[in-house]
Amino acid sequence: MDTYSEFKWYADQLAEVARWAYRNGWAPGTSTNYSMRLPCKAAPALCVITSSGVDKETIDSNHVLTVDCHGQPLGEENLTPSAETALHLMLYRATEAGAVLHTHSLAATLLSRTAQSQGHLTISGWELLKGLEGVTSHQNEVSLPIFSNSQDMEGLATLIEPRLVAAPRCYGFLLSGHGLYVWGKDIWAAKRHLEVFEFLLQCEREVRSYGNATSPR
Amino acid sequence: MDTYSEFKWYADQLAEVARWAYRNGWAPGTSTNYSMRLPCKAAPALCVITSSGVDKETIDSNHVLTVDCHGQPLGEENLTPSAETALHLMLYRATEAGAVLHTHSLAATLLSRTAQSQGHLTISGWELLKGLEGVTSHQNEVSLPIFSNSQDMEGLATLIEPRLVAAPRCYGFLLSGHGLYVWGKDIWAAKRHLEVFEFLLQCEREVRSYGNATSPR
Amino acid sequence: MDTYSEFKWYADQLAEVARWAYRNGWAPGTSTNYSMRLPCKAAPALCVITSSGVDKETIDSNHVLTVDCHGQPLGEENLTPSAETALHLMLYRATEAGAVLHTHSLAATLLSRTAQSQGHLTISGWELLKGLEGVTSHQNEVSLPIFSNSQDMEGLATLIEPRLVAAPRCYGFLLSGHGLYVWGKDIWAAKRHLEVFEFLLQCEREVRSYGNATSPR
Amino acid sequence: MDTYSEFKWYADQLAEVARWAYRNGWAPGTSTNYSMRLPCKAAPALCVITSSGVDKETIDSNHVLTVDCHGQPLGEENLTPSAETALHLMLYRATEAGAVLHTHSLAATLLSRTAQSQGHLTISGWELLKGLEGVTSHQNEVSLPIFSNSQDMEGLATLIEPRLVAAPRCYGFLLSGHGLYVWGKDIWAAKRHLEVFEFLLQCEREVRSYGNATSPR
Repeated sequence: MDTYSEFKWYADQLAEVARWAYRNGWAPGTSTNYSMRLPCKAAPALCVITSSGVDKETIDSNHVLTVDCHGQPLGEENLTPSAETALHLMLYRATEAGAVLHTHSLAATLLSRTAQSQGHLTISGWELLKGLEGVTSHQNEVSLPIFSNSQDMEGLATLIEPRLVAAPRCYGFLLSGHGLYVWGKDIWAAKRHLEVFEFLLQCEREVRSYGNATSPR
Repeated sequence: MDTYSEFKWYADQLAEVARWAYRNGWAPGTSTNYSMRLPCKAAPALCVITSSGVDKETIDSNHVLTVDCHGQPLGEENLTPSAETALHLMLYRATEAGAVLHTHSLAATLLSRTAQSQGHLTISGWELLKGLEGVTSHQNEVSLPIFSNSQDMEGLATLIEPRLVAAPRCYGFLLSGHGLYVWGKDIWAAKRHLEVFEFLLQCEREVRSYGNATSPR
Repeated sequence: MDTYSEFKWYADQLAEVARWAYRNGWAPGTSTNYSMRLPCKAAPALCVITSSGVDKETIDSNHVLTVDCHGQPLGEENLTPSAETALHLMLYRATEAGAVLHTHSLAATLLSRTAQSQGHLTISGWELLKGLEGVTSHQNEVSLPIFSNSQDMEGLATLIEPRLVAAPRCYGFLLSGHGLYVWGKDIWAAKRHLEVFEFLLQCEREVRSYGNATSPR
Repeated sequence: MDTYSEFKWYADQLAEVARWAYRNGWAPGTSTNYSMRLPCKAAPALCVITSSGVDKETIDSNHVLTVDCHGQPLGEENLTPSAETALHLMLYRATEAGAVLHTHSLAATLLSRTAQSQGHLTISGWELLKGLEGVTSHQNEVSLPIFSNSQDMEGLATLIEPRLVAAPRCYGFLLSGHGLYVWGKDIWAAKRHLEVFEFLLQCEREVRSYGNATSPR
């Protein structure tokens, strides 16, 4: 990247979103990770990403590092990239994501297990769906794939990548018992997508528990 | 309007209520919109209204514009009025509302679908009903009509308007899977009505899920 | 009362507790009211009490007034005492309360209706009961009477008073569909009792909804 | 301990964690208690611990005292150590804990009663388990023993101690109707363990209420 101040700008944006996720209760116990794709001119740097094991209540730009397309750290910060870096890199390959946010909310964690046998969560009939890029009506259907959790991140990435390439209006997936991955064309779109999905997951969790939502009209 | 400072006062009030709604969790993902009727002397300006697609966590008076009774922007701000402006204008025609607030809380969104087949939500037996203008006893019945959602705002407005004209003590309605509209004689009454309805919707949501509230006495 | 500064101290304490209750979500839509008994030397002033219809998010000592044992305002503030002043006065007659707090939480409002037919809520088996004055074991039973709501406050006071005189370890009651009254020997005890009851009401609400708590041991 | 400033450092850390627990809603009504083991050179002082009956919203280092291995206060602060000091001392004997945190969240209090007959809560299949020291996969099983509550703290300690000695990856237990004890090698690990357990208890509470989580994979 050209200058330190440019890196600092990315790292500050990312840390701010991470602290916001913590305040919302979506990042307990040093869990969750966040990244932003860098412009081409920054190559071989591919993205900035949060380092492993940091408390998101107080994370700042000192806990953010740059990695290349193999997940190798490029800076001199002596930080370890998130253990889930492979999933972020996969998303930058498979989609046009400008930012990737991975959170552990209660609703996402629960639904990822209770709906796991269906393989995906289909969401429709909610006006807030229009907060997702390219969705123009509450009647559109959005699908959130659900994958089994694993500690083998490279293996998971290999499994998930073909499912996402060319999937229309797909901005997220669930890992069972683990949490939610969302992305967007830039950090603001990704943040909005996260807020939209978290709200919709709360809606779906309650509808599926009590079982009496009417069909969307 | 006479002066910039008067417009600024309205815009500041409106933005403050919008940020308050966000803090309460009722305005996720750039959703929701808010307006205040202007005094007659401001004609042809009818109301100030929030612009489209703004994050309500950080909205300020720069994201508020004035429109006439056809929803046409009047200022030089180069802002797009909310996509739901037609519903606000309809409410200023059909009622004496001084302010209109449209939010997306979890309780409103859920009940608007689970109770949709009944066409309305009848609320009674709760002391907090007295927070609504003109309600003097917990035994009064307040009805919240529920309408099917639509992306055709002009069509929705035409459908809803005759239902509201002359409805006694009606300060809100639900759009199915979408959210809640409330109003009041001024911004403070509208804000109080919003807080009252949000509380009562939480009560109703829980009573209807567990099904064992006794009749009001 | 002797001096303005002494009144100000009481009024500040009361307003601070009211704002705290609002932050906890227990005082929506200008509802709820609060009072503190004054020392004997302040006679004929009996207590300070919040005025009617004030938003508790921003209440301060300017919204607090003194009343005598008939509920007549004594100061020059030109404020109207809370519509429920008669219940506060009754509690100062029937008990040794130094402060009375009346709130509208979701748990209190819901349980006051769902358990109304039993006439009271008996709470036992929770360690937090020891937060109530004189309760020394989680095995003690605490009873929270539930009364039908009414708009006739004098009538309600007459009905409730004989039930409270000499009731051991009784620091609160519920009004059906309305909310919770709690008291304590001073404002700090009353505040602690409120926090304890609100927590226990949440426990009871969930146990009674899902129905599988074992007996206390 | 060598110096006042060293004691102050421990007391400040402890009070900060206590206020954080309060903000999370895990410390209502002056309940809960917290301690940190002191280094060997501080003998006969064993740990710093919060004093009895303090409001955790505003607790500071003035409400923290040092005790020896019999729970006797060593400083000149004239404070009474927490009524549950015996359980903290037992944990410092039975485990290598560097800090012990005891909280009263809604989820912990409820599950401690609803699952009491099983004698323990077995937690598995959640990625967040990896936030516990030594847990490397979501497929690991973590057991949280549940003990009957008692007002005899010495008796409780005698009952619990043999169950914990040599229990692998055990960082907490529940007291029925009372709350959660957690610990860790230092205050930061204990705090992370608390946040992890509170999240997992919320997951388990919901899964057990609605009953349809699939098995972990």
